[in-house]
Amino acid sequence: MTKLTAASPIGIFDSGVGGLTVVRQIRALLPNEPLVYFGDTARVPYGTKSQPTIRKYAADDARLLLKYDPKLIVVACNTVSALALDVVKELADDIPVLGVIAAGARLAVEQSKIKRIGVIGTSATVNSGAYQSEIHRIEKNAFVFSKACPLFVPLAEEGLAAHDATKLIAKEYLTELLEANIDALVLGCTHYPILRGAIRETVGNSVTIIDSAEAIARDIKSTLTEKSLLNSSMPCVPLKLLVSDVPQRFKSIAEVFLGVELPDIELVEV
Amino acid sequence: MTKLTAASPIGIFDSGVGGLTVVRQIRALLPNEPLVYFGDTARVPYGTKSQPTIRKYAADDARLLLKYDPKLIVVACNTVSALALDVVKELADDIPVLGVIAAGARLAVEQSKIKRIGVIGTSATVNSGAYQSEIHRIEKNAFVFSKACPLFVPLAEEGLAAHDATKLIAKEYLTELLEANIDALVLGCTHYPILRGAIRETVGNSVTIIDSAEAIARDIKSTLTEKSLLNSSMPCVPLKLLVSDVPQRFKSIAEVFLGVELPDIELVEV
Repeated sequence: MTKLTAASPIGIFDSGVGGLTVVRQIRALLPNEPLVYFGDTARVPYGTKSQPTIRKYAADDARLLLKYDPKLIVVACNTVSALALDVVKELADDIPVLGVIAAGARLAVEQSKIKRIGVIGTSATVNSGAYQSEIHRIEKNAFVFSKACPLFVPLAEEGLAAHDATKLIAKEYLTELLEANIDALVLGCTHYPILRGAIRETVGNSVTIIDSAEAIARDIKSTLTEKSLLNSSMPCVPLKLLVSDVPQRFKSIAEVFLGVELPDIELVEV
Repeated sequence: MTKLTAASPIGIFDSGVGGLTVVRQIRALLPNEPLVYFGDTARVPYGTKSQPTIRKYAADDARLLLKYDPKLIVVACNTVSALALDVVKELADDIPVLGVIAAGARLAVEQSKIKRIGVIGTSATVNSGAYQSEIHRIEKNAFVFSKACPLFVPLAEEGLAAHDATKLIAKEYLTELLEANIDALVLGCTHYPILRGAIRETVGNSVTIIDSAEAIARDIKSTLTEKSLLNSSMPCVPLKLLVSDVPQRFKSIAEVFLGVELPDIELVEV
């Protein structure tokens, strides 16, 4: 049995830089926690790929993070949370594993007054039905309406959050959810908070936007509090960033997601 | 030394399904040639990744195709042609290797009357300057204007070729090339022929569109003719399709690129 200590880091992984929106929320809520983040930038994206491939990649990612003796593993990737959370949990053994889907689903059910909930995500996440199952586990009478929005990821990475084309694409994707009279919309992909403005403009003010990144930060706090594993003082290395590739424009794209200047990054092999 | 025979297949690879636009042109020009195509759908896209990662993936792809004893290797991927053609040539030894960039550059110089040539492609292809070098090698006084168009790939894969958002994005990307008074535009990515309509609408009729897929099909014919390696009768297996992942919607997306119904596909590991 692994010995979990408060000074150990929280391990977080994602298919690429998107999970830095989760890091951003964790740092806002838990500034004393040392974080180790791995982004699999050499094989990104996961969301358009098949389940066997996603499960293989998830196992590689989990094994990598386990080398850093984390006290908690956060699956920031919605696609992995949807299709391979069990793979990560099995490898993590007694280390707690939290995925963004359970967190987002719980917050959506809490916030939706009429229990008509929209979910947007990658093709793999939406086709898995994972948000729907999780929402129904909590509230069996909820109605869930899902829509894959594959162009939102490249639009966010291209820095076109405020472009007219993004608004047209948002309308194309979201109209059928609005016609279903949802009152809450889950951003089921780590990239989507970057497009929050265009999404808000399309859905109007009567729909509550649920950010899974915010939701999971709260879950992490509860879990660590419960297990007496909260770190009490500022760590020497607040954020360690590992990536499997450093493509061009990496720094500028990653900084948009993290919201502050990047620390040094380390290139690793998976 | 490998013995090359006319009955051997042409090996073609790409980062994903995009290279099927090249297969389509080869089949149109050389219907008797047996083809083996590999699409690295588990690690697609390459065009946003770094050179070391692209070179590693290119070596894996070449090694896989070499198992099929090809008489010629076609690098359908513009990104690999730009950044790793030497890697493929070294592994292929005495088997001829053709890349789409040399083919597209030659055709562009031929067709441009005023030698003001636009090139569009992935970030990796454009940043490599490979089209520019190749065009200048042929015609040192040519002016080359390049622009990365990262959203064109997901727009093509999402089936939004005719959507208003695609026209807006095309205008966003192509305006600066038009302002440079180009009279030829190289489609330097295998996905772009799918968006030919929106690109044509944006650039107008005075710009000649150069499709590298058409260009390389002609180069293949010349090379095989010169080496007396053209196959003379209809092969038993005209097209063998290998992929490293079979994601959802694979069949429908791939059929858009190939233009006909897909043959059986084989899942391989790289």
